[in-house]
Amino acid sequence: MTTEPSPYWLRDNCPCAGCRDPRNGQKLFRITDLPDDLAIAAGAELDGHLEVLWSDGHRSRYPLPWLAGETGEAGDDGRTEAGKRLWEAADFADGLPEARWEAYLADPAERAAVLTAVRRDGFAVLRGVPAEERQVLAVAGTFGHVRVTNYGELFDVRIEPDPNNLAFTSAAISPHTDNPYRDPVPTLQLLHCLENSATGGDSGLVDGFRAAALLRAEAPEHFAVLTRTPVPFVFRDRGTELRADRPLIDVDPLGRIREVRFNNRSIATLRAPAAELDAFYAAYRAFAAITLRPALQLDFRLDPGDCLIFDNVRLMHARTAFAQDGRRHLQGCYADLDSLASTLAVLERRSAALDELAALFEGEGAGEYLGEAVTMAEHMLQAGALAEAAGAAPHLVAAALLHDVGHFRGTLHGRDLMAGQDNRHSDTGADWLARWFGPEVTGPVRLHVAAKRYLCAVEPAYRAGLSEASEYTLRVQGGPMSEQEAAAFADHPGAADAVAVRRWDEQAKAADARTPDFAHFRPLLASLMG
Amino acid sequence: MTTEPSPYWLRDNCPCAGCRDPRNGQKLFRITDLPDDLAIAAGAELDGHLEVLWSDGHRSRYPLPWLAGETGEAGDDGRTEAGKRLWEAADFADGLPEARWEAYLADPAERAAVLTAVRRDGFAVLRGVPAEERQVLAVAGTFGHVRVTNYGELFDVRIEPDPNNLAFTSAAISPHTDNPYRDPVPTLQLLHCLENSATGGDSGLVDGFRAAALLRAEAPEHFAVLTRTPVPFVFRDRGTELRADRPLIDVDPLGRIREVRFNNRSIATLRAPAAELDAFYAAYRAFAAITLRPALQLDFRLDPGDCLIFDNVRLMHARTAFAQDGRRHLQGCYADLDSLASTLAVLERRSAALDELAALFEGEGAGEYLGEAVTMAEHMLQAGALAEAAGAAPHLVAAALLHDVGHFRGTLHGRDLMAGQDNRHSDTGADWLARWFGPEVTGPVRLHVAAKRYLCAVEPAYRAGLSEASEYTLRVQGGPMSEQEAAAFADHPGAADAVAVRRWDEQAKAADARTPDFAHFRPLLASLMG
Repeated sequence: MTTEPSPYWLRDNCPCAGCRDPRNGQKLFRITDLPDDLAIAAGAELDGHLEVLWSDGHRSRYPLPWLAGETGEAGDDGRTEAGKRLWEAADFADGLPEARWEAYLADPAERAAVLTAVRRDGFAVLRGVPAEERQVLAVAGTFGHVRVTNYGELFDVRIEPDPNNLAFTSAAISPHTDNPYRDPVPTLQLLHCLENSATGGDSGLVDGFRAAALLRAEAPEHFAVLTRTPVPFVFRDRGTELRADRPLIDVDPLGRIREVRFNNRSIATLRAPAAELDAFYAAYRAFAAITLRPALQLDFRLDPGDCLIFDNVRLMHARTAFAQDGRRHLQGCYADLDSLASTLAVLERRSAALDELAALFEGEGAGEYLGEAVTMAEHMLQAGALAEAAGAAPHLVAAALLHDVGHFRGTLHGRDLMAGQDNRHSDTGADWLARWFGPEVTGPVRLHVAAKRYLCAVEPAYRAGLSEASEYTLRVQGGPMSEQEAAAFADHPGAADAVAVRRWDEQAKAADARTPDFAHFRPLLASLMG
Repeated sequence: MTTEPSPYWLRDNCPCAGCRDPRNGQKLFRITDLPDDLAIAAGAELDGHLEVLWSDGHRSRYPLPWLAGETGEAGDDGRTEAGKRLWEAADFADGLPEARWEAYLADPAERAAVLTAVRRDGFAVLRGVPAEERQVLAVAGTFGHVRVTNYGELFDVRIEPDPNNLAFTSAAISPHTDNPYRDPVPTLQLLHCLENSATGGDSGLVDGFRAAALLRAEAPEHFAVLTRTPVPFVFRDRGTELRADRPLIDVDPLGRIREVRFNNRSIATLRAPAAELDAFYAAYRAFAAITLRPALQLDFRLDPGDCLIFDNVRLMHARTAFAQDGRRHLQGCYADLDSLASTLAVLERRSAALDELAALFEGEGAGEYLGEAVTMAEHMLQAGALAEAAGAAPHLVAAALLHDVGHFRGTLHGRDLMAGQDNRHSDTGADWLARWFGPEVTGPVRLHVAAKRYLCAVEPAYRAGLSEASEYTLRVQGGPMSEQEAAAFADHPGAADAVAVRRWDEQAKAADARTPDFAHFRPLLASLMG
């Protein structure tokens, strides 16, 4: 070891199955379960790992790249200014981050791009969302959960006869964040335009993180005042009395801008000595003046079918006044950034998994397939193509395509199977695939060896048709099932799917077959991950 | 003025109708709308107010008690340790904060007591909640909105075959907060017991604020480390990848404990120089050891029908292991403290309004009623009693009881009416009541004078029966309606209710009638505020 790692940190990160639930990665011990005098009794690098014997007898094994910080969780939660692209209006001279609703729904890459924009720029616009009531809830459902508030599951932004909020009038609204009187404040807002035929009523966005960063650069003392002064935000109507005392600019423990709340409409009476009030109001007015700088104001118009998604703890949104010469009707709802980030991470993880599968088909998969006349990749592509040609359901096409993936995963390789040692490739493959696919895909993969042993027991013609290599591995895998085993297998709810995959498996060994490549199957696999 | 108030602060708090929407109290100007050189041109105390002429010509008028901080929003949002009662287990030797579900539903005071306990102690138990599926959502609905998470709208805590979380096994779970990997984290949790016949499976709570305060007292350097170290909390399953980097102990800008996150299961790899990791783990282990002190552990058993409501950013909850000799099934959901605080504030505001009404009936209401043989309070109580005796709907009983409340509200008094100046008491009364009651109550109050003018127009016998005083005020109020006015009134959807109230009004002037007192009507009024 070049540097001595912190012992409690190292032990807290022990990856063994006794310390972490292998199914969900959750730690299985309490930090207080570790002895007070914990120390490394012995440590050595071996086979790309740091092997540690602990003073209490426990043994841990850490991959060296993980120890060096090259693998494992990287970065942070991306919620502070450090994870953002701070912007001014001119940065969008070439257009807003946007996508068509249909493409967003159909293509995971398009979805990831939109969610990435919300994380990075604080907003994105979906175009062509059906201009129908309650559709905004469907948009929110694509990346998270609606946050219900006193305004309901959704709210209508249009002129109301007896408004409880300025939003429900035709007046101009200067840049602000919503619901600052809530704690937790909703971190995302959606605004879906159903009608906008009025003169005026344009939308504006300001990057509140950018404004705060400018304040810090130009007047650090003002910035400091705003980060350390809890401001009472209040909203009150007949059934509601919300209050949150939070600073206008919230920084994380490292001093990085994390959240902005800004809404003069709902700032109630701040009580403090007069000198502090003077300092606060000077800072507040300086910050407010920055938010009104033309360079920061990104103005655009929402047309029917447009849905704006934005970060409500970063961006301020505004509206110009509108004339009552036409109708303006938006529907809005709130949601949260954490679920959006999760959805994006899962999309990226799935995309990476598909890349990894593609690489396997091109790399290891291009190698010899256990004595057959085809490569492993050709074999699996043939099996997938046969399933597809047979009109099989997508999950069976995927299972056929991926059934042997366990041959190039896990510690035992396909060649071990040929050397007489069962690599249990159906289980290792299914376990690996279960990180992305449901049981409808992993089930047939898990049972495809059992299905072979079953078919050999009940269909003499099937066994007679096995290739030489397959006849050899049958013995390593336990030989044909007994009558009792076969009866139990037939009763298994997944037996039919497994048998179907097995038959494509056996047929997929033609040396001269022309098959589509892995990219052909990628959208189908992506849809099954959804 | 004894001290010079801060000018921008003072102006930002101008209560005039041009500066604040009288309907919702929202401010109607931007802080940047105020001139850069704003100053007080002249100020004087007059009639209990500070009258200010501003340098830009605006005039403001501030009640002196408000200026002195005696009225207006007091305190803060109650979310830090300053607003709590920090506890150890012995503080509940005489019992937990609890209520019966039926009493909680029926009695606003009981509801307020339970919600107060959640705010103050961090938890309360409702007993006798029907042990039925999804009932926990009904409990949450009494004070807020369910926060949907990756676990769904609600979650079942029972043994699951392939758990994605330790909660869904029979293992012991040490004190922790839930979902620390969410940001915003759900601030409230509900656990509703449907079955608990297993041996073990008891519940435990620890006051995390108390534990943090002890750490601060005993080892301030450890406390400081935990408040300034963002910890990566991670949860990952096939469809989820949540991450939040937050300190274990979150303090507000004034250094007060505000939130605790504590869950070793989901702490991922913290990356920092070894010395910082050593400091963090020493502090973390010290904090964890405090949470395990027997004095802090409040243990109890949830029985079927019990619903525990607790603050998930303050209290840590735990569970003892249980044997599989019986069944244990809880249903849980998440919600948020802000809505709970709002619900409590509205309950308290309504209770205060009823107190104020009661005082009016006893105070001003005991005075002369415009030349009638009864006091104003007797008159209104009689009207309410007549409506009740007639089997009228609750909102009509309330309207009859409260119809003349405008006589003792507002700037013009009932005596002005007798002096020939219409005090528009139906409007002032209805406006005041609208802060608590819906249009079904305020409508008849608002229209009860119009109803008199209507009845005098269409029913000669009604007019003949008016008391002498009522005949006098009729003229001040505009006399009988014209035929056109009467037709328009009859078409009004609220006409029938207003006429009904008016008839009880006229009958309610008997000098010798025995009526129930205000307290008799209080539950009815409270139910109409709900």
